[in-house]
Amino acid sequence: MSRVRFNTNDSTYVDDTSSDIDSNVQLDHESLERRYGDINPNLDEYSGEEVEVNPGEEDLEDTPISPVTEVPTETTNSTEQNCGSPPHIPPTREKFKIALCQLSVATDKERNIAHAQQAIEDAADKGAQLILLPEIWNSPYSNDSFPVYAEDIDAGGDASPSTRMLSEVSRSRKITIIGGSIPERSGDKLYNSCCVFGTDGKLLAKHRKIHLFDIDIPGKMTFKESRTLTAGERPTIVDTEVGRIGIGICYDIRFQELAAIYAARGAHLLCYPGAFNMTTGPLHWELLQRARAADCQLYVATCSPARDGGSSYVAWGHSTLVGPFGEVLVTTEHEETTLIAEIDYSVIEQRRAYL
Amino acid sequence: MSRVRFNTNDSTYVDDTSSDIDSNVQLDHESLERRYGDINPNLDEYSGEEVEVNPGEEDLEDTPISPVTEVPTETTNSTEQNCGSPPHIPPTREKFKIALCQLSVATDKERNIAHAQQAIEDAADKGAQLILLPEIWNSPYSNDSFPVYAEDIDAGGDASPSTRMLSEVSRSRKITIIGGSIPERSGDKLYNSCCVFGTDGKLLAKHRKIHLFDIDIPGKMTFKESRTLTAGERPTIVDTEVGRIGIGICYDIRFQELAAIYAARGAHLLCYPGAFNMTTGPLHWELLQRARAADCQLYVATCSPARDGGSSYVAWGHSTLVGPFGEVLVTTEHEETTLIAEIDYSVIEQRRAYL
Repeated sequence: MSRVRFNTNDSTYVDDTSSDIDSNVQLDHESLERRYGDINPNLDEYSGEEVEVNPGEEDLEDTPISPVTEVPTETTNSTEQNCGSPPHIPPTREKFKIALCQLSVATDKERNIAHAQQAIEDAADKGAQLILLPEIWNSPYSNDSFPVYAEDIDAGGDASPSTRMLSEVSRSRKITIIGGSIPERSGDKLYNSCCVFGTDGKLLAKHRKIHLFDIDIPGKMTFKESRTLTAGERPTIVDTEVGRIGIGICYDIRFQELAAIYAARGAHLLCYPGAFNMTTGPLHWELLQRARAADCQLYVATCSPARDGGSSYVAWGHSTLVGPFGEVLVTTEHEETTLIAEIDYSVIEQRRAYL
Repeated sequence: MSRVRFNTNDSTYVDDTSSDIDSNVQLDHESLERRYGDINPNLDEYSGEEVEVNPGEEDLEDTPISPVTEVPTETTNSTEQNCGSPPHIPPTREKFKIALCQLSVATDKERNIAHAQQAIEDAADKGAQLILLPEIWNSPYSNDSFPVYAEDIDAGGDASPSTRMLSEVSRSRKITIIGGSIPERSGDKLYNSCCVFGTDGKLLAKHRKIHLFDIDIPGKMTFKESRTLTAGERPTIVDTEVGRIGIGICYDIRFQELAAIYAARGAHLLCYPGAFNMTTGPLHWELLQRARAADCQLYVATCSPARDGGSSYVAWGHSTLVGPFGEVLVTTEHEETTLIAEIDYSVIEQRRAYL
């Protein structure tokens, strides 16, 4: 029986009499330990046996290993918080430049691919070693467009010109790319998918948006991704040359549990390609990024498409990098632009030691 | 074996070849379901058997039942989010006034008790039906003071004049009081404890601060509650005449998991008495409140002591009520004041339906 049970006692409070004060509606201690243990586990529990982040040799056969951060089988707790602290996984590289490419998106897919490639190469020229693209950068953001612009990422090649470009650029420029998202066709289903490419052009991970964007704020914003898209089923955390990165897409950022899982697994950075809109953008976009960063004490990067006032779905813009104290390090308005900023992972451990 | 295991495959990305893209470092689906199920459970799982919020008759014997909200044994899911929505527990009262008493605290405990009583009565005169007091309102906030001002709440009467006053006022004014916190002596241990009193003066719940405030930001703020205090072990959620309320004290607000547990148990309102300081206050006080409210889509109320620039620990002030979209409904600066604002729980369901 893994579910939590409530213990409830009633008690009366009488001024002059000792009373049973155990009157809380509360979780029993064991369950609390288990919950907190699950989400912010004590590091003693992080044994090599249970956290198999790097594939074992027997799984690799003769395929080349993509460059991944070495994961220690035992780590140490840098703070003494009573409910544990996320594990410290030393990144291969502590400091590097990230580029957030807030791209304009047109109806011409070939233009979108060439345009994104140019932005990535420009950012690489300026020293960016990690590139983050927006949600749905190769297609207009609409249920009518998703099926038309969708690509078969697994088939690759001509079946997926968008990810082919990302693979080629990441290899030629030796950079890591978090490829925003594109509509993905897989069999008879469509997904909203983010591909991560390593410096050798390999696909390191693919995240399918878990939490589809179905909202209905009368008179302001109604959109149902579920009309065309299928939800992904799994969180995605990936080791790259620029740290261990947890991936979410747009609405995924609303789910604190997802970020908490990534933090518990040693993520240094969460990347959320996302196209919030003119209603939810001013309400929640920055709040959610700062909350994820401050709660998990790690970096959070977001990347939106640039705003196109003439499109059916108007993006909020405001791509942002947030530091592990929840502080906005760099942000922008809604025009097309590329933000380049430095990430320094040593700050994470400093912040965790402070608090 | 309840721990989550990682599945990791390596894969190569070759443009013209179908590739295994299952390369994520990811949780298996069953584990994700279990995690999300635990924290935001589907309502099907909320059976009367497992959620015993009201005590069964056999537990009550002849002690009077404190007034509690009726809890349906089955509830319905008002939204169709794919990872579940918190249960809707209809509150007894949908609209009421809450008072946040941002009290000045002196070294004279008797003065502090009389002063708090006056503020509570004034707020009740203005129609407040729920009163929230600050963290450590009967004592200076210092490790030297905690043992001196601590009271034996369980013994009651003369052993706990602070909670005796709260009990008497709640009964005489027929109001619910979330009694901030006071240092509690229990055997040879001290706790930072919040007592909740119902409209009949009964102690409905007592929350002992779970996450002690031990921080060390060199040159800015160092404090170690654990020098004198013992951490509480259990979350506290309590049914009152003004809704189901989850309690945290100050540093407890940093732990999203605690708020998520309360939301999953149907809380309408989270109350955090808290004395953030001049370093952490501007950094995180409002951010954390808004994050808890927006993530859980419920009300969050905080209450700080007023600022005393001459004390060893200078409180940030800024008591605040936040609505279920993460919007600040009412807030203040750092002077002594009582904020009175209306809470309307029907907004919670509306917000959850929107998003």
